[in-house]
Amino acid sequence: MSQVRSTDADARLALSRLLAPIAEDLALVDRRLQQELRSSDPFIDQLAQHSFRIGGKRLRPALLLLSARAVGEITAEHHTLGAVVEMVHTATLVHDDVLDEAEVRRHVDTVNARWDNQTSVLLGDYLFTHAFYLASTLESTYGCRAIGEATNTVCEGELRQTASCGNFWLGLDEYLGIIEAKTAELCACCCRLGAHYAGGDHATVERLTSFGRKLGMAFQIIDDLLDLEGEEQTTGKSLGADLAHQKMTLPLILLRDQLGPDEAARLQALCEEADAGHRAVLLQWLDESGALARARRTAEDYARQAVEELAGTKDGDACRVLAQLARFVVARNA
Amino acid sequence: MSQVRSTDADARLALSRLLAPIAEDLALVDRRLQQELRSSDPFIDQLAQHSFRIGGKRLRPALLLLSARAVGEITAEHHTLGAVVEMVHTATLVHDDVLDEAEVRRHVDTVNARWDNQTSVLLGDYLFTHAFYLASTLESTYGCRAIGEATNTVCEGELRQTASCGNFWLGLDEYLGIIEAKTAELCACCCRLGAHYAGGDHATVERLTSFGRKLGMAFQIIDDLLDLEGEEQTTGKSLGADLAHQKMTLPLILLRDQLGPDEAARLQALCEEADAGHRAVLLQWLDESGALARARRTAEDYARQAVEELAGTKDGDACRVLAQLARFVVARNA
Repeated sequence: MSQVRSTDADARLALSRLLAPIAEDLALVDRRLQQELRSSDPFIDQLAQHSFRIGGKRLRPALLLLSARAVGEITAEHHTLGAVVEMVHTATLVHDDVLDEAEVRRHVDTVNARWDNQTSVLLGDYLFTHAFYLASTLESTYGCRAIGEATNTVCEGELRQTASCGNFWLGLDEYLGIIEAKTAELCACCCRLGAHYAGGDHATVERLTSFGRKLGMAFQIIDDLLDLEGEEQTTGKSLGADLAHQKMTLPLILLRDQLGPDEAARLQALCEEADAGHRAVLLQWLDESGALARARRTAEDYARQAVEELAGTKDGDACRVLAQLARFVVARNA
Repeated sequence: MSQVRSTDADARLALSRLLAPIAEDLALVDRRLQQELRSSDPFIDQLAQHSFRIGGKRLRPALLLLSARAVGEITAEHHTLGAVVEMVHTATLVHDDVLDEAEVRRHVDTVNARWDNQTSVLLGDYLFTHAFYLASTLESTYGCRAIGEATNTVCEGELRQTASCGNFWLGLDEYLGIIEAKTAELCACCCRLGAHYAGGDHATVERLTSFGRKLGMAFQIIDDLLDLEGEEQTTGKSLGADLAHQKMTLPLILLRDQLGPDEAARLQALCEEADAGHRAVLLQWLDESGALARARRTAEDYARQAVEELAGTKDGDACRVLAQLARFVVARNA
């Protein structure tokens, strides 16, 4: 694994270098997004433009476009679908920020902080429904079906996560199942759409889908790690939300499962009193026990498995970039 | 117009008698809904079953099925689409209840009251995305496109309404535009889908769509009236929410537009202090000025226009029921 460590701005720069081979297509996706998010109503227009900016790294359109190129040609359908997946992702971010009561994301005020929760709920709905409408403008129902299925799984994952908050005994498998649904599924869907609409055969589409799923797992584990150990200034978003909501994530689960009953009870008490002081004690414990490192290794394993899925696909530049992307996802610290 | 006035239970009984000719098909839609909303996750299953119960009158599936029968035969596709539109409608109700901070709906606790806002936001998303997935299982993209477009317009309408809260000077046309988007559009879409999937020609589909839109306008004006003058026990839901959120509705707009500047200022002050005492004064004023009656007449006009749209379609039982439905919508008081 490469050792790129950087601030949010550095990470963006590194990512944009990585994605240089599809820069033109990403720009077309962005243009499409911006066109679609225009509204004749000034309030909606302002909100939509704001949501365009919080979307961020464009990781999901990149996965879609690279999967297309790994298999064949990027077409206008891919640009449309790139806008669709980014819109879906932004909708989930806007609703997540309501749930987490977050105030900043990527150095930008969240919608609920600048306006209010009401507006955030409706804007998220607006983005979801617009994404579906856009998907339905394609000729076949394949895109609608894949997007409908994946977003429904994402919502299921979010609901299961909500139900699990405050459950100190959340099992490892349950945690992995939740992040697979809430994050990995949409990444998998991006790769599926890219490959399918480029004319990939069944086996290739499934292999790339599996690549996306594994990359998504790695991505979410690192996201959870950054929420624990990251710095607000570097990541550009509100942190410590998981602890504040008593959401069990991988390092905590790994540490808990290696403790005896008395120590586990002490850990549980620390998790339940997640102010800044307790958080520092917790972090030190997670670090010294090796739980942080083991969580990171788990993410690296997923990234490695993702790369192995590419072995069966046609070799080429796009595959090389997809592999680099999998490594970037775990090496980032923003 | 018939003079049916009733409690919520009476209204349901009257409606179910009216809809007797499509009772079997409505039962099939309900069965489909219940099947689709099952989940292997016990928490999601419980939530989905709860949302099934708050859906209520099944007005939208009824519009869809009757429009199908007015044109031709009801098919399995109509049952699927009936479940889709009811799911979309329930999603908007669940999110509305978050926005309105409502505690009861149809004598049942709202999701935010029984669980919390977080769960409501995610459950609404789950229902939206499931509806889209279900629409995408049909053969053509027509259903996805119509549903995507209509739901996006609904969200636009809700956003415009949010932006208009506290704006005492909201224009009549703006109010009508908002309710057309947030309510009438989905009713129009139901009729469109029913007629299209029964093989209706372009002109017939458009006429039935227009019928649905006008019925939807009538429906929302009456809903707003009930929120002002209704009784919680009769309607089975939290009332006075519009005033509490300083949402201008038709009777207030009509009264305001007939007042001089001084009286308008007094009305504005009353609207801004919407506790129970002020609400009683306001209601008396609305009543004595004739604004309530004029608002009701506007709804009746829309219902009449809706019925006129049916003149061009093939005569028959289904058309007769659609006409009765338009009259029921304005005569109900729950």
